[in-house]
Amino acid sequence: MKLIVAKFGGTSVETIDRIKSVASRIKNEVNNGYNVIVVVSAMAGETNRLIKLVESLTNDYRTSEYDTVISSGEQVTSGLLAIALNDINIKAKSYQAWQIPITTDDNFSKANIENISKDKVNFELDNEYVIVVPGFQGTYKNRITTLGRGGSDTSAVAIAAAFKAGRCDIYTDVDGVYTADPRVVSNALKLKTITFEEMLELASQGAKVLQTRSVALAMNYNIKLQVLSSFEDKPGTFIIGERQKNMEKTIISGITYTSNEAKITLFNVNDKPGQAAMIFGALADKGINVDMIVQTSTKDGEATDITFTVLQSDLLNAADIIVKLKPEIGYNKMIEDSKVSKVSVVGSGMRTKPGIAKIMFKTLADNNINIQVISTSEIKISVLISSDYTELAVRTLHDEFQLSN
Amino acid sequence: MKLIVAKFGGTSVETIDRIKSVASRIKNEVNNGYNVIVVVSAMAGETNRLIKLVESLTNDYRTSEYDTVISSGEQVTSGLLAIALNDINIKAKSYQAWQIPITTDDNFSKANIENISKDKVNFELDNEYVIVVPGFQGTYKNRITTLGRGGSDTSAVAIAAAFKAGRCDIYTDVDGVYTADPRVVSNALKLKTITFEEMLELASQGAKVLQTRSVALAMNYNIKLQVLSSFEDKPGTFIIGERQKNMEKTIISGITYTSNEAKITLFNVNDKPGQAAMIFGALADKGINVDMIVQTSTKDGEATDITFTVLQSDLLNAADIIVKLKPEIGYNKMIEDSKVSKVSVVGSGMRTKPGIAKIMFKTLADNNINIQVISTSEIKISVLISSDYTELAVRTLHDEFQLSN
Repeated sequence: MKLIVAKFGGTSVETIDRIKSVASRIKNEVNNGYNVIVVVSAMAGETNRLIKLVESLTNDYRTSEYDTVISSGEQVTSGLLAIALNDINIKAKSYQAWQIPITTDDNFSKANIENISKDKVNFELDNEYVIVVPGFQGTYKNRITTLGRGGSDTSAVAIAAAFKAGRCDIYTDVDGVYTADPRVVSNALKLKTITFEEMLELASQGAKVLQTRSVALAMNYNIKLQVLSSFEDKPGTFIIGERQKNMEKTIISGITYTSNEAKITLFNVNDKPGQAAMIFGALADKGINVDMIVQTSTKDGEATDITFTVLQSDLLNAADIIVKLKPEIGYNKMIEDSKVSKVSVVGSGMRTKPGIAKIMFKTLADNNINIQVISTSEIKISVLISSDYTELAVRTLHDEFQLSN
Repeated sequence: MKLIVAKFGGTSVETIDRIKSVASRIKNEVNNGYNVIVVVSAMAGETNRLIKLVESLTNDYRTSEYDTVISSGEQVTSGLLAIALNDINIKAKSYQAWQIPITTDDNFSKANIENISKDKVNFELDNEYVIVVPGFQGTYKNRITTLGRGGSDTSAVAIAAAFKAGRCDIYTDVDGVYTADPRVVSNALKLKTITFEEMLELASQGAKVLQTRSVALAMNYNIKLQVLSSFEDKPGTFIIGERQKNMEKTIISGITYTSNEAKITLFNVNDKPGQAAMIFGALADKGINVDMIVQTSTKDGEATDITFTVLQSDLLNAADIIVKLKPEIGYNKMIEDSKVSKVSVVGSGMRTKPGIAKIMFKTLADNNINIQVISTSEIKISVLISSDYTELAVRTLHDEFQLSN
């Protein structure tokens, strides 16, 4: 019998009625002849409630005790969904990570899956049970671990890989991946397919449909992944390995943006070896991720300007660290700017079709949008612009690359 | 090192502040040189919230899925208390039932403990960890079980027995066991000691300090049990095996009452063998517990009246069953009365001091309180009276037996 893995996010199991609706969706799959492993998140809001309880006691997330508390939200949903399924005569059992077991390393609160045992679950599947697995959970040497925020997507993909599922459906509150945010670009189109690499760039560039890590995992194991809505009954977006021949024409798959970054510029930094290592090493030591970095080219021995971006939530800490390092860095002025957005053009076709960057930069220039920082990958070009122009940039780029056709 | 088990009920861990206060209490025990295993309930209100979720899906409590959902409340508290302890530099680890493991039979939602493994917990205790165990939980063949409402007391006593603890402290929202309900009898006294048997009678007669089952277990294993307040810092009531010689004078240890019973009387029941078995068998088959039973003595072959009590919550069901059996029973009239209370005098000294019943009945008669039903055990006399006279009966009996001295 063919196996599918279906994962439901927090809003999809937010209420008892929604859990019942998930159950009837699973019943359809069973009636269509599928074996099903369901992966569930905590009911929306529950994980935040639990984190708040822990945070009123400690700031230390890296313990099994943290994970013991936080993982209980998914445990509850898994039991409730199993009950809802049995209630409509679909045999179902919940399996917590320790019951399967799903073993991880000991990075509590952001553990990595190491192994998923198959015997017990396969035995139940052979007896036509639907298995309900709480996402986000793992176990390390008899302790409870969790996989980090959004880890339920990773659970689903890892389970799909371990049990060689024919498909992994990620049900969420949007109905697929769009060429741009439909709230910004009214004629944005839902993509029927998108490649793993494109999805990776979209995810890391702010399209909050799938956790980056789960996409990377699906790519490694070549899992047939589908993102679809749990509220509507229609196909979503399939995430695929490579575009088929007749689809080569798709050069750009989407325009995306993030507004949660802030820019720091240091003027007249002493130009000597090791400056960048010192600055970004100090930030990394405090757990601050730096995204884009630009350094003006200089002649040997002259001062240089360094610009970089961090998350807005890290801006104060980052500035603080830089100020303390001023004697060593030797800059004469620091400017912070949190009114910035990063706009990205993503498409695996970019690789074979040069000139995308030129079109992007010209389109922005034609609209008087100043580019502050540029960063590129093989299948993505990102620019930092003033946040005033975010919507304008996304819309005109969407038009220019004819993504509504 | 001497081991104590300390159990904290739902109100004792209701808020983060109270959890912190529990942690500092445990810290004192550790600083006094004790090894400690803490048993915790769910935060007050949490178990009811979880039960409500399940009840909106099913009425079937006898599944592991029910237990998976319901047991999560204790899991959360155990993690939070371990965090709170570590935060004040007391090494602590939570251990869920499956991690220890505490194995039970497969009576899901009201399982019985079969075995408690000691190796893992002893290893941690040897390394001076405080172990925090969620009460109420068990495990059966890789599934989650729970011990039934109030099962955390049972968990605590069973753990105290398994690890041969020197003492088992049950922290709750009252500061001990009283000679009568202090809300009814203003000069009720807190007992320094009470015997297991007395406590058993008190618990089953409505003194809601300890779950009956946990008292029976403590009696079997002769656990030194103490009931005390988690909000005040003073000794509670010790529950002991046998009274010491110099305490023999304590004949009566307390007056207790329940108001949740209802009375059913059947008039002119055909007097033939098997009538009682038929009536009470039919009730038992539907899970209805009958408490007191009185049958008027009859001459052979004459009709008789039968009176019995059930929980008020079972009254409608019970009456329904009786009505359906009317042809077989052959009574001519049924009267139901839920305005009744059961008042009991409890004391192990009763055994060796006859005449207690006489004093009790005379006291009630002197106050014009009519006795409807009487039931007795070796150390207890219970009477059913109109609920209008509950407080009066408790107060005058408390005075008559001089329990304030």
